[in-house]
Amino acid sequence: MIDQRRADGSLRHLITLEGVRRDEVEALLGRAQHYARALARGSAYNRVLEGVQVATLFAEPSTRTRVSFELAGRRLGAQVLNLELQLSSRVKGESMLDTVYTLQALYFDVLVIRDAEAGVLAHVAAHVAPQVSVLSAGEAHLSHPTQGLLDALTVREHKGAIDQLAIAIVGDIRHSRVARSAYQVFRLLQARELRIVGPPGLLPESEEFPGCARFETLEAGLEGVDVVMMLRIQKERFAATRVPDAAEYFARYGLTPARLARARPDAIVLHPQPMNRGIEIASEVADGPQSVIRAQVSNGVAVRMAVLETVAGRLAQ
Amino acid sequence: MIDQRRADGSLRHLITLEGVRRDEVEALLGRAQHYARALARGSAYNRVLEGVQVATLFAEPSTRTRVSFELAGRRLGAQVLNLELQLSSRVKGESMLDTVYTLQALYFDVLVIRDAEAGVLAHVAAHVAPQVSVLSAGEAHLSHPTQGLLDALTVREHKGAIDQLAIAIVGDIRHSRVARSAYQVFRLLQARELRIVGPPGLLPESEEFPGCARFETLEAGLEGVDVVMMLRIQKERFAATRVPDAAEYFARYGLTPARLARARPDAIVLHPQPMNRGIEIASEVADGPQSVIRAQVSNGVAVRMAVLETVAGRLAQ
Amino acid sequence: MIDQRRADGSLRHLITLEGVRRDEVEALLGRAQHYARALARGSAYNRVLEGVQVATLFAEPSTRTRVSFELAGRRLGAQVLNLELQLSSRVKGESMLDTVYTLQALYFDVLVIRDAEAGVLAHVAAHVAPQVSVLSAGEAHLSHPTQGLLDALTVREHKGAIDQLAIAIVGDIRHSRVARSAYQVFRLLQARELRIVGPPGLLPESEEFPGCARFETLEAGLEGVDVVMMLRIQKERFAATRVPDAAEYFARYGLTPARLARARPDAIVLHPQPMNRGIEIASEVADGPQSVIRAQVSNGVAVRMAVLETVAGRLAQ
Repeated sequence: MIDQRRADGSLRHLITLEGVRRDEVEALLGRAQHYARALARGSAYNRVLEGVQVATLFAEPSTRTRVSFELAGRRLGAQVLNLELQLSSRVKGESMLDTVYTLQALYFDVLVIRDAEAGVLAHVAAHVAPQVSVLSAGEAHLSHPTQGLLDALTVREHKGAIDQLAIAIVGDIRHSRVARSAYQVFRLLQARELRIVGPPGLLPESEEFPGCARFETLEAGLEGVDVVMMLRIQKERFAATRVPDAAEYFARYGLTPARLARARPDAIVLHPQPMNRGIEIASEVADGPQSVIRAQVSNGVAVRMAVLETVAGRLAQ
Repeated sequence: MIDQRRADGSLRHLITLEGVRRDEVEALLGRAQHYARALARGSAYNRVLEGVQVATLFAEPSTRTRVSFELAGRRLGAQVLNLELQLSSRVKGESMLDTVYTLQALYFDVLVIRDAEAGVLAHVAAHVAPQVSVLSAGEAHLSHPTQGLLDALTVREHKGAIDQLAIAIVGDIRHSRVARSAYQVFRLLQARELRIVGPPGLLPESEEFPGCARFETLEAGLEGVDVVMMLRIQKERFAATRVPDAAEYFARYGLTPARLARARPDAIVLHPQPMNRGIEIASEVADGPQSVIRAQVSNGVAVRMAVLETVAGRLAQ
Repeated sequence: MIDQRRADGSLRHLITLEGVRRDEVEALLGRAQHYARALARGSAYNRVLEGVQVATLFAEPSTRTRVSFELAGRRLGAQVLNLELQLSSRVKGESMLDTVYTLQALYFDVLVIRDAEAGVLAHVAAHVAPQVSVLSAGEAHLSHPTQGLLDALTVREHKGAIDQLAIAIVGDIRHSRVARSAYQVFRLLQARELRIVGPPGLLPESEEFPGCARFETLEAGLEGVDVVMMLRIQKERFAATRVPDAAEYFARYGLTPARLARARPDAIVLHPQPMNRGIEIASEVADGPQSVIRAQVSNGVAVRMAVLETVAGRLAQ
C-alpha cells in the first residue's frame, strides 16, 4: 500500500482512498462542505495557497476534472499551470522520473496527475522530494479519489448520514475508477448496504468489492435503494455485455424512470459525467427531480479546494 | 429576438447588437474610451472583477479575439480560463447543454463563446442560470458584437461623430459577421450614409442591410466616403466572385492607393485582421497613414473591458 | 550585431549574449543568485512586474523553457499568456510583422519567443515599439541566452570563479544553440580553458568557437577538466557521426563513469535536458554525485526572473 502521509501523520498525497482513515475523510468532507456553501454564496475566495504552485498533468487540457482542480486552486490563491503532458505516454522509467524531477526543480508544490497507466502515481509519489504532494485526478481503472469524495459529499448533503443508506453502483463496474473510489469511501463511511449492479460481463472479479451484493439486472439491483450511482459506459464495452448496440444496451441496462421507480421514492441519482443520454441513462432521469448530477460538479470544486488546502498543510480559518 | 437583459433592464448577455439601445451603446463606448486612454497610459488595471470567473470557449486557443478577451478580463482582476472546446462540434442538443450546465455548476460567471453555428449562443443564453452572462466572440456569419463596438470606437476616435460620416463596408459582405455587426452599430449611431461594396456574388440577399446603398466596384463604392471598412476574403469564396485566383481578385477588388484615392483625402481604413495583404488590401494601404488597423486591436481590449464590466454589473468608478 | 539596449544604455532585449558586457552578465547572475536562494527558501515572490504583460510564443506549450519563463514571470507578479504560435511557421515578412504589431497593440510588454528560424527574433526586435522587450527562448542553432546564463550560474554556484576553470562542452556542438550561448558566457567570464569535444562530424566549422581547443574523443577532451557540459544528441545526427545507432553512439561518445574519471575528481556534469539516457549520457552519471542537472532547472527559473526584472527596468530592492 502507498504511504500517503508525512512523518507527522498528516496527509501529503491523495492517490487513493485506500488506507485513508475515516476521521481524515470526515475532515475533508467537513472542509468541502464549508467551501460548497461559500461557493453557492459567491464568497469562496481566500489566499491560503498564496505562493503555492500547482501543476496539472493531463493528456487533454479541457476535461472537467482538470478545470475543476484549476478553479479550486485559483480560488485558494494558488498558481495553477496546465502542462498538457502525460507521464506514461513517455518512455518508461528513468525518463518519466526526469520529467518529475524537473517539475520538482521548477518548484512545483503539488502535481495533479491523470494517468491511464496503473502505478504511475505511486511511482511518482515515491520519488518526489518531501515538499511535493501528488494528487490523483484519475488513475487507470483503479482510483479517482476526489470523485469518490465528491460523491460522498453529494450523497451526505442530500440524504444525510451514509450509514443509514443503501447505495447501488450501476453499470461498467469492472473498468471504472469512479466505482472503485466510490466503493472505498462509502465502505469507510459504513453505508448500510452497498450493491454493484451491471451486465455480467462488466461486473468485477469476484474477489473485488468485498461486502457488496451483486446484481445483474437493474430491476433487482435498484430495489429499495436510497442512492443510484450511474457510471459511464464506453461503446467498446458492448461486446462484453453481449448486446449489439447502444439502443439494445439502453433497453436492457439504461436507467429509465420505470427502473428508477424500483428504488425508494426519495432516492437520488448520481453520474460522474459526461453522460451518454439514451444509452446508460434516460434524459427524463438525468434532468429529473431525483438527479443530483449538477450538484456533483459544484461539489467537485469544493472537494478539490479541501484536498489542496489539506495536503498543502494550510487550513484556512 | 434574443432577450439580452435582466429583469431590471440591465445588459446581461451580449450576443448581438440587434436590440441594444443607442444609450447602451453610447455608455459602452464611453467606458471603452476611458479604458483605451488608460491602456495607452499603461494604467488600465483595477480589481472590479475580482472573484469573477470567465471561461472562453473557442475551438482554437490563440485567436486574437480570445486573447483580447483574456487580457481584458485579467486587467479587471477576473480569472479567465481558456477551455478550448467548441459547443457545436459536440453532439447536439442535450449533450451541448450538459456542457453548459457543467460550466455553470463550476461557478463560471461569464461564458465567452465563439461558434461557427448560428443559434448556439442564444440557445446557451436561454438555458443558463440567471447569474451567468453569455458573450459572443463571433457567431457564424451573423454577429460579432465586440468587433462592431471596437470598430465604432475606432471610427469615433479618429473621425468624430458617426452621424456626420459616410461609411463603406467592403468585400465579402455576404459571409461576414464583422460586416453585420458593423452595420448594426453604425446604423444605430445614425451614420450619415452606409454603403456595402463587393463583388456581386459576395453581396448579401437584397432584404439584408436595409438602408445601405450597394456597389459592385470599389471605384464607385468608395467615392467620397469617410471610412473604408475592409473585410477578410476567404480563398474558397473566389468561385462566387468569378475570379480565378488571388492575383485577379486583387486586380479587381483589392484596396489599392489608387482606389482609396476615391474616398475623402482624410478617410480612414479599417480591417478586422488577419489581413490577406496583396489580396483584399495592398500593403501600402495597410501600413499607410490612413490605416487605423492597429488602433482597432488596442480598442478591442478596451471594448471588451467595458463589456465585461457592464455585464458583470460592476462598473469601476 | 543586434542592438539590445535602450538609448540610456540599459538592456531592453535579450536575444543573444553576443555584445552583452561582462558587468551586465555579472549583474544578471547576481540577481539570479538572489532569486535562486529565495526559491530554495520558498520565498521567491514579489510584485515588481505587477501590470506587466508577458506573451510566450512557442510552437509547443509544454517545453520546460516555456514553463520556466511562465513561472518566473508569475513569481514577479507579471501576467503571462502562452500564445502557442510560432512566428516563422507563418507566411514570411509582413504577415509575421502583422502578428507582432497585433501583440504590441494588445499591450504586451515582453515577448518571449522560441523560433527554429535564424533571424526572426532580431527582425521582431527591430520592429516593435520602444516599450516592448523581446527575449529569446532559443533561436535555431544559434542562441539560447537564458540557458547560457543558467549554466554559468550553476557552474559558479558549484565551482566558484569561472576564470579558474577548465570547461568542456561535449556532443553535437555544430547544431547546438546551448553550446553557442554557453561558449559566449564562459568566454566573457574568462574561463581558464574552454574545450569543445565531439564526433568529427558534429564539431563546428573551424572559424566558430575561437579560442576553444577541439577534441574528437571524450577520453582526450575530458582530461583534467572542472566542468563537463553535455549536449543532447538528435537521432538524425548519427549519420554525421558515422555510427549506425544509439548503442554504438553511446559506446563511442556516451559519458560513462569511466570517461568522466578522466576529468578532475570534483568535476561537475551539466546537461540542458531532456536527456537521452544510454545514448549521450549514462544514468550512473546523470544521477550521480557529480551531476548538477537538477540544479540547472532551478537556476533556470532564477535566471529568467532576473532577466524579466532587468529588461522591464524594475529591479526589486
